[in-house]
Amino acid sequence: MTVANSVQIKSPLAAEELQKLDAYWRAANYLSVGQIYLRDNPLLKQPLTIEQIKPRLLGHWGTTPGLNFIYVHFNRLIKRYDLNTIYICGPGHGGPGMVANTYLEGSYSERYNRITQDEEGMKQLFLQFSYPGGIPSHAAPETPGSIHEGGELGYSLAHAYGAAFDNPDLMVCCVIGDGEAETGALATSWHSNKFLNPERDGAVLPILHLNGYKIANPTVLARMSDRELESLFVGYGYKPYFVEGDDPAMMHQLMAGTLDEIVAEIQGIQRDARTHGFKQRSQYPMIILRTPKGWTGPKEVDGLPIENTFRSHQVPLAKLGSNPEHLRMLEAWMKSYKPEELFDHTGKLKPELAELAPSGDRRMGANPHANGGLLLQDLRLPDFRQYAVPVTDEGTVETESTRILGEFLRDVMALNLDSRNFRVMSPDENNSNRLNAILEVSDRVFTGEILPIDDHISTDGRVMEVLSEHLCQGWLEGYLLTGRHGFFSCYEAFIHIVDSMFNQHAKWLQTCEDIAWRLPIASLNYLLTSHVWRQDHNGFTHQDPGFLDIVMNKKPNVIRIYLPPDANTLLSVADHCLRSRQYVNVIVAGKQPELQWLDMESAIKHCTAGLGIWQWASNDSGHEPDVVMACAGDVPTLETLAAVDFLRSHYPDLKIRVVNVVDLMTLQPQTEHPHGLSDREFDSIFTVDKPIIFAFHGYPYLIHRLTYRRTNHRNLHVRGYKEEGTTTTPFDMVVVNDLDRFHLANDVIDRVAKLRNTGAYTKQIIRDKLIDHQRYIIEHGEDMPEVQDWKWQYYSGSSSEKKTIEHASSTESAMVGDDSTARSAE
Amino acid sequence: MTVANSVQIKSPLAAEELQKLDAYWRAANYLSVGQIYLRDNPLLKQPLTIEQIKPRLLGHWGTTPGLNFIYVHFNRLIKRYDLNTIYICGPGHGGPGMVANTYLEGSYSERYNRITQDEEGMKQLFLQFSYPGGIPSHAAPETPGSIHEGGELGYSLAHAYGAAFDNPDLMVCCVIGDGEAETGALATSWHSNKFLNPERDGAVLPILHLNGYKIANPTVLARMSDRELESLFVGYGYKPYFVEGDDPAMMHQLMAGTLDEIVAEIQGIQRDARTHGFKQRSQYPMIILRTPKGWTGPKEVDGLPIENTFRSHQVPLAKLGSNPEHLRMLEAWMKSYKPEELFDHTGKLKPELAELAPSGDRRMGANPHANGGLLLQDLRLPDFRQYAVPVTDEGTVETESTRILGEFLRDVMALNLDSRNFRVMSPDENNSNRLNAILEVSDRVFTGEILPIDDHISTDGRVMEVLSEHLCQGWLEGYLLTGRHGFFSCYEAFIHIVDSMFNQHAKWLQTCEDIAWRLPIASLNYLLTSHVWRQDHNGFTHQDPGFLDIVMNKKPNVIRIYLPPDANTLLSVADHCLRSRQYVNVIVAGKQPELQWLDMESAIKHCTAGLGIWQWASNDSGHEPDVVMACAGDVPTLETLAAVDFLRSHYPDLKIRVVNVVDLMTLQPQTEHPHGLSDREFDSIFTVDKPIIFAFHGYPYLIHRLTYRRTNHRNLHVRGYKEEGTTTTPFDMVVVNDLDRFHLANDVIDRVAKLRNTGAYTKQIIRDKLIDHQRYIIEHGEDMPEVQDWKWQYYSGSSSEKKTIEHASSTESAMVGDDSTARSAE
Repeated sequence: MTVANSVQIKSPLAAEELQKLDAYWRAANYLSVGQIYLRDNPLLKQPLTIEQIKPRLLGHWGTTPGLNFIYVHFNRLIKRYDLNTIYICGPGHGGPGMVANTYLEGSYSERYNRITQDEEGMKQLFLQFSYPGGIPSHAAPETPGSIHEGGELGYSLAHAYGAAFDNPDLMVCCVIGDGEAETGALATSWHSNKFLNPERDGAVLPILHLNGYKIANPTVLARMSDRELESLFVGYGYKPYFVEGDDPAMMHQLMAGTLDEIVAEIQGIQRDARTHGFKQRSQYPMIILRTPKGWTGPKEVDGLPIENTFRSHQVPLAKLGSNPEHLRMLEAWMKSYKPEELFDHTGKLKPELAELAPSGDRRMGANPHANGGLLLQDLRLPDFRQYAVPVTDEGTVETESTRILGEFLRDVMALNLDSRNFRVMSPDENNSNRLNAILEVSDRVFTGEILPIDDHISTDGRVMEVLSEHLCQGWLEGYLLTGRHGFFSCYEAFIHIVDSMFNQHAKWLQTCEDIAWRLPIASLNYLLTSHVWRQDHNGFTHQDPGFLDIVMNKKPNVIRIYLPPDANTLLSVADHCLRSRQYVNVIVAGKQPELQWLDMESAIKHCTAGLGIWQWASNDSGHEPDVVMACAGDVPTLETLAAVDFLRSHYPDLKIRVVNVVDLMTLQPQTEHPHGLSDREFDSIFTVDKPIIFAFHGYPYLIHRLTYRRTNHRNLHVRGYKEEGTTTTPFDMVVVNDLDRFHLANDVIDRVAKLRNTGAYTKQIIRDKLIDHQRYIIEHGEDMPEVQDWKWQYYSGSSSEKKTIEHASSTESAMVGDDSTARSAE
Repeated sequence: MTVANSVQIKSPLAAEELQKLDAYWRAANYLSVGQIYLRDNPLLKQPLTIEQIKPRLLGHWGTTPGLNFIYVHFNRLIKRYDLNTIYICGPGHGGPGMVANTYLEGSYSERYNRITQDEEGMKQLFLQFSYPGGIPSHAAPETPGSIHEGGELGYSLAHAYGAAFDNPDLMVCCVIGDGEAETGALATSWHSNKFLNPERDGAVLPILHLNGYKIANPTVLARMSDRELESLFVGYGYKPYFVEGDDPAMMHQLMAGTLDEIVAEIQGIQRDARTHGFKQRSQYPMIILRTPKGWTGPKEVDGLPIENTFRSHQVPLAKLGSNPEHLRMLEAWMKSYKPEELFDHTGKLKPELAELAPSGDRRMGANPHANGGLLLQDLRLPDFRQYAVPVTDEGTVETESTRILGEFLRDVMALNLDSRNFRVMSPDENNSNRLNAILEVSDRVFTGEILPIDDHISTDGRVMEVLSEHLCQGWLEGYLLTGRHGFFSCYEAFIHIVDSMFNQHAKWLQTCEDIAWRLPIASLNYLLTSHVWRQDHNGFTHQDPGFLDIVMNKKPNVIRIYLPPDANTLLSVADHCLRSRQYVNVIVAGKQPELQWLDMESAIKHCTAGLGIWQWASNDSGHEPDVVMACAGDVPTLETLAAVDFLRSHYPDLKIRVVNVVDLMTLQPQTEHPHGLSDREFDSIFTVDKPIIFAFHGYPYLIHRLTYRRTNHRNLHVRGYKEEGTTTTPFDMVVVNDLDRFHLANDVIDRVAKLRNTGAYTKQIIRDKLIDHQRYIIEHGEDMPEVQDWKWQYYSGSSSEKKTIEHASSTESAMVGDDSTARSAE
């Protein structure tokens, strides 16, 4: 090993310190093995018997000794330099190591009083691991000091950077598994250094743990030459240090010496930037730690090599019941750590070892940054009402709703610039999503080369743009989990790229609900825009509203979905989301110019209720309607109101009730979601027996899924997005999906008893309209003027009676029905 | 620019060749601009008027000239070296370039006769682009030569490698956008070179197109120093060549010279490996092409710089209607390509330019590898019946079903070794998923360093394992799209990592249904295992059956979902999937030892029907049952049958019908999916009015979504997975989710009229069982023996009468009901 940045084996550790450090490490390893195997005899005071072994051996040994090694060395470092450090455990399946170390340092017992630092506590510590009623086998929310479960690999480094942003004093120790390093998310996370500014941000020390093997395969990175590895990380912008070996004493010296050097280097970078201002991106150090998988475990079992092979991944000795030799090997293995030198006879860690750990909040298991709710400050929010779009006549003025939201977010940003606790993420779509206004008060951040021609980019911006949904999501999670706030805007279709990360974050939040010491953190707020219905520049591959289905699968108490139909409702919803805690909030709203429906007072009431009858658009005057026309989402709302207009023009006597849904959760039964309407309320709004034509933003099934238990579900007819290929005018898009005003009107004619036999003329008109549309767009490449320029005419300020009279002449007389144009729904 | 591998500006192109090459490039650029803007006057024979401009300007100019530059140079290369090449266009939004080039080479008109190579054809070519009834703006399935839409960025390089595997003569030109390069999937795709063997595989030439900007931001990679860039790609294992500049003449020489050198290098690597056998991984060349974004377009518009900035991303001149100056600028821009030098007066490309393109199948738009169905050969399949698990008595023997599947796949692999058209992908889970047998006939492939200690790893394996679902999916897509076969096994929860890639592939397949010249390709086959119900080593984060919901959102004609309950049904389903075309098949099956239900004959019949009554498990003897107990998935099937056993023991007179569902699509109405049962069939199986207790593998809503239109839906009660945290014994897992035998039995008692008033004693027994269970697992850490050892007792061979008599004594007498133990469902 003759690589540039490998440290000459100095010997920074005096003999006694070395011996103690190694003893502490042995203690952590001992406790890790104990968790996997033992349910009794924790100190091995008696010869080990099979009855003391857990009947089911679960967990992962292979990565654990390396994780323990790093933890122990960081303890030394924290004490020596008074560092403020959290530990992100990429290979989260090495959970026993994280539990062992927090137990040794005392932070574990402080949170779990039952797990005392004595023999009985140790027995319970062992027993509970991966055991019914006990704790998970990963670095889960239950684990003190963790903000990263690590079960799904790939997100450690993005989490680490997210934690370091705006935490100038924090140094994040981030262990990256070499298997994890093969994932896409991790592979691009290395570039996060181009977004870190040492003047205001903390540091991340990535430690690539070259453990050699995954479950059954060598890792890709472990089989690269040192030259390629070094080149790769230099290319990523780091200065790699190799720490490599299997002799503990040598490795302790090497690791201690390397870390001393690295701390000096990082502190030098920070000092320089904080004294002279940030000049240019520095090469931050990173460590390539090459240790044997299953280090210090059994070398060989049944003639097969174990240590340093994939066979040590989970439980190296698994046939204890059937093979007494294995039981003896386990005992020998555990005794090789010399527990009697580590713990006193009561089971307590010996004081001369205990003092190696930092104390108080400096312990990595007690660092408040890893329990972000402790540090969380409320955002300062401007009064969202002041951004209101004036709407005196409903459905007559057009605005880009997300552009209005951008003005609100601009001032949220401005108000919190000093507190440095709010960031906005987007995969290169901030402006495309019309949130440009934010850039008036904060640039985009970039610490790579910036050219004069660049637009609103600087080293101290708070808008984070990178063409990776993984990074946006990972950074934001890390930022939120350490007690800050954020907002993530994304093209709707491509949010699926992080389905899996959303799943994991929602599971984390849900689990935290049952952990009293984990305080609530700010919600993860998504704005999904550039949505399915308006992909003019793109097409079919940019159309996918299915993220809502993914979200709905998660536990109701941690998820919220909002579909504000216009700018004022969007403002109200966004304000609510930014104040909320412990949720994932999904807001879906379009960025294109669209008609505005509600003034701010009405918008607030509507959003507070979550769903409601739009009386100004309805003509059932408080009586039972003939039909309920419901809508959720901006484009469906537009088409529904245009359909209502069409119907009211043709059938002034038809009693239509218009219901708009902002908060999708209200549709669910109260038993399923806290926002769910009671059946009584639901029935009073949707009736118990009238047809409901529901125009929905997403896949239509979702509405059925939410409502199938409701009284009137049998009369519910949903139109939503179907996988129907590309199209290139906005209106054609809804026509292809049968979600347009004409199909909706046709649905009503088909379903309302009193029209069924009289609707032929109107249906003929509808058919002709659709043919006109098809001809027009082929000829002109854009929508028919009557569609493009359509506005609502029955607004509160207007005399709807006059209007309806004007159109009364076009109402058809009774005729035998003609259903031939009705297209199949959904 | 003084970087190692940048080619000295030789001048390989003679003046005439240079001039022609440049002219051809100008023609491609001209046609690209024309597509974005014009609907008439294609050759600019008349002064350009606003009426000749499309009313809606859509598409992306910025990346296009660079894509055209590469295409033109590959034409030269193909002709010069008789290369077999396909072009993967990572920035697929540069679709106009792909269309322009295939039009110039003639492959476009061959597929779309209407788009002739003359003035009228050119007019139609322009008009159709991103226009109603026309073509998408991306490198879509409609585009000849494309296997990559490129709308969702990140998958070009994985597709390229997938195409190159087992295609020794193919050289894949893969253009990677610098924005795309920031994505996770792309960042890890560079490591694909560790899986490519030049002895048997073709080559990939990655061209990183440093276009400088994304939509609104500079790209990360464009702002790295040449030293870092070079280091990064050397680290990834490549030999980077820089081609950089903006002067066309200089750039043509540089590109031509570089490509000449690179072809020689690649051919040298291949020759060496094919002559002397593969020795060690070579440093393959790659190109870093740095050209201005929007190259050759407007330099400045309205005082703002356009070329070489983000402002050229979409449509550089967009205000043609309101600003006559813009119209003049467009005309000048198009005329700067000198169309009169490129096309004759009929609009045909001049012959001296046309001859620059390769001919026949060598044209990249006509290469059969980009229309894989042309090359597809059937897999040779062994008779799956020969792997049958002997089942004489249903539900009495245990087997790991996926291990049996592994034996079948082993022989599929063996039979197709010579044809080199079958690969198996897995993210380091092949053995974990019990498919070990495959390794008996083929190793895992790895072309990095291999150690003697490694298990079944060699440079010529056909099992592809890398810890990246993105790579598994991307490689497999590339492999299938070029006409081969494959199988992808994955942990169920983590398949969500590629939700988005699945979406895109399903959309691709759907679109191809309407493109006559695209021939069917082999289906993409997923085995989802290590599933939600058996995550003993892991826990909550490894529990997510929601991929099925994602799949269900796609068009029914391209998706299939199978939940075989045992080994023989799994074999039957897998055989079917491997024979199928043009689908995405999802098979969900457990890897743990599980009871086997059907002998092979029954399994085939059951799978062919897709769903059926299990008569041997039912006791309604062909009459109307009191209750239908339905199940889909292996664990739900086990619990259902155990519940049936319990109920039959306690209520011998209760008539239970057991229905098992293998093919989830059968539940849907026939109108929704080709596999859907008719309502008549459905009603005859599920009855029209009896309670249905449905135990489902996934989230319960999915079953409601599929069946809400069925007659008896109101009596359908579904139990499935709920987000309910971790647990550590298999049975506890189902208990926590109320999907266990006892809850299922309790459901029946609650819902069958004749039991409702008599069920209290049995419900008490159930309650006690659940308490016993809870106590037992806390004490013993494993399942109660009566659960662990449970077997079916009413198998066909047994006298069910005898058995029921034995248990009759435990049947309770009439009592007032007690519903207190009933837990809320779903």
